[in-house]
Amino acid sequence: MLRADRVSNPLLKSKIMSADAAAALIPPGANVGMSGFTGSGYPKLVPGALARRMKQAHAAGEAFRIGLWTGASTAPELDAVLAEAHGVEMRLPYQSDATVRKQINAGEMQYTDLHLSHVAQLVWYGFLGHLDVAVIEVAGILPDGRLIPSSSVGNNKTWIDQADKIILEVNSMQNLGMEGMHDIYYGTQVPPDRQPIPLVRANGRIGEAYLRCDLSKVIAVVETNQPDRNTPFAAPDENSQRIANHVIEFLGAEVKAGRLPPDLLPLQSGVGNIANAVLAGLNNGPFENLTAYTEVLQDGMLDMLRSGKLVSASATAISFSPEAMKDFNENIEFYSKRIVLRPQEISNHPEVVRRLGVIAMNAMIEADIYGNVNSTHIKGTSIMNGIGGSGDFARNAFLSFFVTPSTAKNGALSCIVPMVSHVDHTEHDVQIIVTEQGLADLRGLSPKQRARLIIEKCAHPDYRPALTEYYERALRESPGKHTPHLMNEAFSWQDNAVKVLNTESA
Amino acid sequence: MLRADRVSNPLLKSKIMSADAAAALIPPGANVGMSGFTGSGYPKLVPGALARRMKQAHAAGEAFRIGLWTGASTAPELDAVLAEAHGVEMRLPYQSDATVRKQINAGEMQYTDLHLSHVAQLVWYGFLGHLDVAVIEVAGILPDGRLIPSSSVGNNKTWIDQADKIILEVNSMQNLGMEGMHDIYYGTQVPPDRQPIPLVRANGRIGEAYLRCDLSKVIAVVETNQPDRNTPFAAPDENSQRIANHVIEFLGAEVKAGRLPPDLLPLQSGVGNIANAVLAGLNNGPFENLTAYTEVLQDGMLDMLRSGKLVSASATAISFSPEAMKDFNENIEFYSKRIVLRPQEISNHPEVVRRLGVIAMNAMIEADIYGNVNSTHIKGTSIMNGIGGSGDFARNAFLSFFVTPSTAKNGALSCIVPMVSHVDHTEHDVQIIVTEQGLADLRGLSPKQRARLIIEKCAHPDYRPALTEYYERALRESPGKHTPHLMNEAFSWQDNAVKVLNTESA
Repeated sequence: MLRADRVSNPLLKSKIMSADAAAALIPPGANVGMSGFTGSGYPKLVPGALARRMKQAHAAGEAFRIGLWTGASTAPELDAVLAEAHGVEMRLPYQSDATVRKQINAGEMQYTDLHLSHVAQLVWYGFLGHLDVAVIEVAGILPDGRLIPSSSVGNNKTWIDQADKIILEVNSMQNLGMEGMHDIYYGTQVPPDRQPIPLVRANGRIGEAYLRCDLSKVIAVVETNQPDRNTPFAAPDENSQRIANHVIEFLGAEVKAGRLPPDLLPLQSGVGNIANAVLAGLNNGPFENLTAYTEVLQDGMLDMLRSGKLVSASATAISFSPEAMKDFNENIEFYSKRIVLRPQEISNHPEVVRRLGVIAMNAMIEADIYGNVNSTHIKGTSIMNGIGGSGDFARNAFLSFFVTPSTAKNGALSCIVPMVSHVDHTEHDVQIIVTEQGLADLRGLSPKQRARLIIEKCAHPDYRPALTEYYERALRESPGKHTPHLMNEAFSWQDNAVKVLNTESA
Repeated sequence: MLRADRVSNPLLKSKIMSADAAAALIPPGANVGMSGFTGSGYPKLVPGALARRMKQAHAAGEAFRIGLWTGASTAPELDAVLAEAHGVEMRLPYQSDATVRKQINAGEMQYTDLHLSHVAQLVWYGFLGHLDVAVIEVAGILPDGRLIPSSSVGNNKTWIDQADKIILEVNSMQNLGMEGMHDIYYGTQVPPDRQPIPLVRANGRIGEAYLRCDLSKVIAVVETNQPDRNTPFAAPDENSQRIANHVIEFLGAEVKAGRLPPDLLPLQSGVGNIANAVLAGLNNGPFENLTAYTEVLQDGMLDMLRSGKLVSASATAISFSPEAMKDFNENIEFYSKRIVLRPQEISNHPEVVRRLGVIAMNAMIEADIYGNVNSTHIKGTSIMNGIGGSGDFARNAFLSFFVTPSTAKNGALSCIVPMVSHVDHTEHDVQIIVTEQGLADLRGLSPKQRARLIIEKCAHPDYRPALTEYYERALRESPGKHTPHLMNEAFSWQDNAVKVLNTESA
């Protein structure tokens, strides 16, 4: 089943070993940079082998934890197994794993939640400490030692450059037809030697199809044959459809007003149900010759490429359902010509995002009546996932949408609140808020103008009277009337939420 | 006293008229884009004349208000006179005027507080509505109609481009020796036609020394002869000196560790007492051949240029004390070779700031124990000034400092609090917090690691026990332990502040 020719370089062929043997080369206390972005292109075997070592060490009374750095979220074979082994001291820059989340929120794991465009340069600058080992999944190794990247690029270029030692997982389940699809930009420098990034079109190519690798740093090559996480696709629900309709109607009005070209501008879309609904809506909508400049390609973008609505898509990872992955693999020649996968410091770079004029659509947990957005925290204290690339895109986008259903927990919670319990995107960075109830276009508005609009357009009718009452009372009683608030009550909605949730879980 | 040859173009010479006659051309309800950035280069006469018209209209029972757009803050002759005439419906993108602030916080004036790098493009995109009239101070007009810019550039290029009609104030008090000092970049485009901004050095030149102007749009030329605001320079106090020492010691350690070049990287510095102390410290410090890439040049930067510590400075405005202005005017040949003034969409552009690797230093009102920063609001509801360029620089900087004395109101308030009452810079964007007590280097740290460090290094000893007590109790009682908080008490510190301040003013 394993294709021997996936490792064509003789030196690296001599380094082939078992995952257990490779994991034995990772010392306790190391900072380890692993591949993986939104459940794709992560190492499948070495993390599990490392977790077994950790458990053995712990059973013997020895400490064994690592600093775990990735591109973004990974999968149970990486995040969950290492967390279950209590082997992660510090996690960065993003996660979405249930076990990891639980340990972070129990105070057992440190978590540094970073803008995804910041990560690579913070490592180059030496600001996050030393990277000891890189564990990178690749699709193959050329005779000269260059690496065929896998289904995500993420921070792989940086991990390979910066780590003292490199472990490669060569996954023969990844389609070799992806060869040539990647664009690895090697023009980055540290200030004061930086030059402009020469990317001027979403589908432009400015780099190389392969990852360069200092072969003398490779300490192990492990062969694997396992699929990516491949999360099943969930059909958009009614609320997501309504949100999508509001977004598409708004884009149509902007085109009509002459503020957007008929083929729009490059689309960035967060992941999940609402994003899929918007993409499905665009696939059936009036706009042609669309492009995407985003983090992750999911099923919705693949559908749009197939239909021709989308002519090209740039991302740092693909993350498909099993059905979409089958389609991708069967039509790899068609797709690989239309998809470019880049390092995440390029896919998310403010310079490029602002230049291209990306249309950004990101999900959130809650927004407040003044347009501040919470993307990361439950009730102000527990992390959900992380900010990811939402800040990179939202602040630099041409248009920035934040979307959520107007309520959560079957209507028991309002996602529009007087004051968000944690701020990830400030009032200065949020342009358009959309719920199934409607769309609030906040461009150019003052806080008080925003409040009236958000309550009227976005809040659920069940919560609109209480939000209006809060706002009107704040308008009368607040010491300052620029951003009227009753500071003593500002979090009472989340406080009720705590009680509701406690009751539910009891 | 007025030099007739400041207006060398015959057509524009024919448009010379009084300020009253020019102001009569501005209709009620207009959006008016005026020049002015940090009290320099603003029109000196037309706003006052317009305010008189407004008062007359109001006395006659007629409505007369405008939308007032500028570069940043201006001076009493602009902001205060128009506010006193109750003539400003909507103000953007920044202000620091006492009368304007009072009206905003009384709920009488709408205020849209924007990232300064965003303003020009939001107008180009058509997102802030139509610009009717531009009122721009210039230092002179060439025979061919090109304009010699004044002591600030700000959004002048954009106002001149976008407005239907233009009023020019030609101020003969501005030194004509500034001619050639400006760099107006005309390569900007709207997506999808944007190209890289070709600036790769802080002192690079990528544009023209003059503002282009469609002469057919000029409806009036007004001659003036008045100085800029010229705020007196206040010598740094003891706390500012201590903050400066912490910053300079830190920079020295970074150079020693090999994470910064010996000549550092381009400096960005906010305005005020602490900024001046840091600059004075650098002027007496060990670093040579420094450069600046900032918004505003104040006395401190001028001192450093004179001493040779600073070899060049890029900004969008100069704002000096009367003494420094005298020095600037007397040595204009020396200074104009070392200073470049640019449009604010370039001085603050994320693309350029990130490329150059700016060292950003910005003041704040308060920080919380998790590293969130409030730059704009008093007690969560009243605006102080605005976010200005702090967000443009902080998120994209190589190193980002936020500085404040550890207490305010003679020790009655802690500037380190459990939770900031308004968030302008999130935990994802704040690297280093400095008070006179010490410096907290937050790079790569999790929220809990940050909390311990901020309390230990930055809080005043009088408040350290109470902050520690809050944090320890939150660590025990908080439902989530990623960002431990007692949401019911989070704002109790600001609430006490309200009481203290009420007592003081009673």
